[in-house]
Amino acid sequence: MTIEYVDLKKEMTVKEAIQHIKRTGVDRETINTCYVINNNRKLEGVISIRKLILSDETEIIKDILNDDVISIKTTDDQENIAQLFKKYDLTAMPVVDNENRLVGIITVDDIVDIIEQENTEDLQKMAAMQPSEEEYLKTGVFKLAGHRITWLLVLMISATFTGNIIKRFEDVLQSVVILTAFIPMLMDTGGNAGSQSSTLIIRGLALGEIEMKDVFKVIWKELRVSIVVGLTLAVVNFLRIYYLENVDVMVSLTVCLTLFMTVVLAKVVGGLLPIAAKSVKLDPAIMASPLITTIVDAFALVIYFRMATLFIGL
Amino acid sequence: MTIEYVDLKKEMTVKEAIQHIKRTGVDRETINTCYVINNNRKLEGVISIRKLILSDETEIIKDILNDDVISIKTTDDQENIAQLFKKYDLTAMPVVDNENRLVGIITVDDIVDIIEQENTEDLQKMAAMQPSEEEYLKTGVFKLAGHRITWLLVLMISATFTGNIIKRFEDVLQSVVILTAFIPMLMDTGGNAGSQSSTLIIRGLALGEIEMKDVFKVIWKELRVSIVVGLTLAVVNFLRIYYLENVDVMVSLTVCLTLFMTVVLAKVVGGLLPIAAKSVKLDPAIMASPLITTIVDAFALVIYFRMATLFIGL
Repeated sequence: MTIEYVDLKKEMTVKEAIQHIKRTGVDRETINTCYVINNNRKLEGVISIRKLILSDETEIIKDILNDDVISIKTTDDQENIAQLFKKYDLTAMPVVDNENRLVGIITVDDIVDIIEQENTEDLQKMAAMQPSEEEYLKTGVFKLAGHRITWLLVLMISATFTGNIIKRFEDVLQSVVILTAFIPMLMDTGGNAGSQSSTLIIRGLALGEIEMKDVFKVIWKELRVSIVVGLTLAVVNFLRIYYLENVDVMVSLTVCLTLFMTVVLAKVVGGLLPIAAKSVKLDPAIMASPLITTIVDAFALVIYFRMATLFIGL
Repeated sequence: MTIEYVDLKKEMTVKEAIQHIKRTGVDRETINTCYVINNNRKLEGVISIRKLILSDETEIIKDILNDDVISIKTTDDQENIAQLFKKYDLTAMPVVDNENRLVGIITVDDIVDIIEQENTEDLQKMAAMQPSEEEYLKTGVFKLAGHRITWLLVLMISATFTGNIIKRFEDVLQSVVILTAFIPMLMDTGGNAGSQSSTLIIRGLALGEIEMKDVFKVIWKELRVSIVVGLTLAVVNFLRIYYLENVDVMVSLTVCLTLFMTVVLAKVVGGLLPIAAKSVKLDPAIMASPLITTIVDAFALVIYFRMATLFIGL
């Protein structure tokens, strides 16, 4: 924010206003938008230099100003400010306090930086890091490590649940050892499928294209997309492992049915969790790849072992 | 881009220029920056409305214009244009053809949209999807599925290698079944550690904060960060599985040493691959979580089984 704006009075004529700008404008961040304030510094309207230039010199500011001003409160958070700039295609916005007194302006070049910073922070959160404004090459080793360790620890310990599921079904794995070989494929594909969905929803929420009320639309869409995607993957995989690798037909069926169900579950969960997070005032960006992967892994293994028990009759 | 700009001649006085703007400005996208062109429409300089207002009416445009113009070629790609706007804090830029003839202007509100669109596309690529400009809720089910299937198929088939590694070491897993239970944790932690690094590097490259010449700095930094992170995770994990879960000491050591080596490898590979991709003109964003995870998984398992053979003497 800068306080270097042009202030006009509503009683001025256009000619007086331009003279005022000529006198004071040299120190101002921008003269492209001017702010009309009263004696108590309350914001009464804005007028663009364009309007001033294109108006007759004898017109009175009060008659040509725009009093339907979109302004920012000093307490607004910067993400919302960026949204307003985007929504209204603005190049500058006034900042006012609770009494609607003008305290400064924000220009669009600040906004470009804010947008990039918000995007960087979202990406960092989505990759399980604490967000940081510092440039990578200028950040120290211990600081970088510090930003990364917490989430890795949380996720590492969460992965214990997945390990426990394997322990619980140890006998299944021991009788059909080949089942183990498909665990990485099932976990990875489930994680990737879920991350695709959560990424789209997180981004849609950040851009304001998706809102909380759209939750059922999202679930319904993800359900249908996941059936198409899951079916394709399952069929390709069946052809590959049954015909090319000569895996037993019941094992092949177990793997492919698990794959299908995992993809459907991953995509629905991946679509749902970012919206759920937002509804309890958490940042949707934490519901990204790492957390979705950990959750989906556990589900994938439970489905896998249940299917194995069912199909191979263990 | 718009062709609705204000064009001035360098022989005009400031007064004539302002009169010209008063006459023609009403149809123009912006009058905040005006463009000085010769009779062949070649761009000779720019002048801001600010400069015009603040200059004496009798000055000649030629003496006050800025002829050191940053302009865009019609063939430039939009990502570079956004970079220029950010670098120079501009609100409008002229677009010229190969003969330096002015063909239009781009204003900063277009750039905000371009930046958001580039960020969305990067995110989509990083989550293994084909980038799309359409809003999620407005995109059809088959189109969404189509954007997601290709990469899922590629990654699913790549995960076969990981499966083959498990098959090759089946006897190791059969003699020490408990080893299987740690596979998800090792794979997930390795994937997450690698994604953190690749995300930071991909973002740094996109913002121009990291360049190809920084490759050794990045490797050296990731090596040190990964040693700190890997050591912390390995120690916490050892305390947990050896003391809390009473896992055999040699198995605990195998798991924790693998964890450490996997984290180091994942972070160095995660830091290196985006730069490597850029050096062969691929988009660094494809070297994100999904691909890094698949690569790291395979390495993690090979390390795991080698360590197991070494420590448990299989």
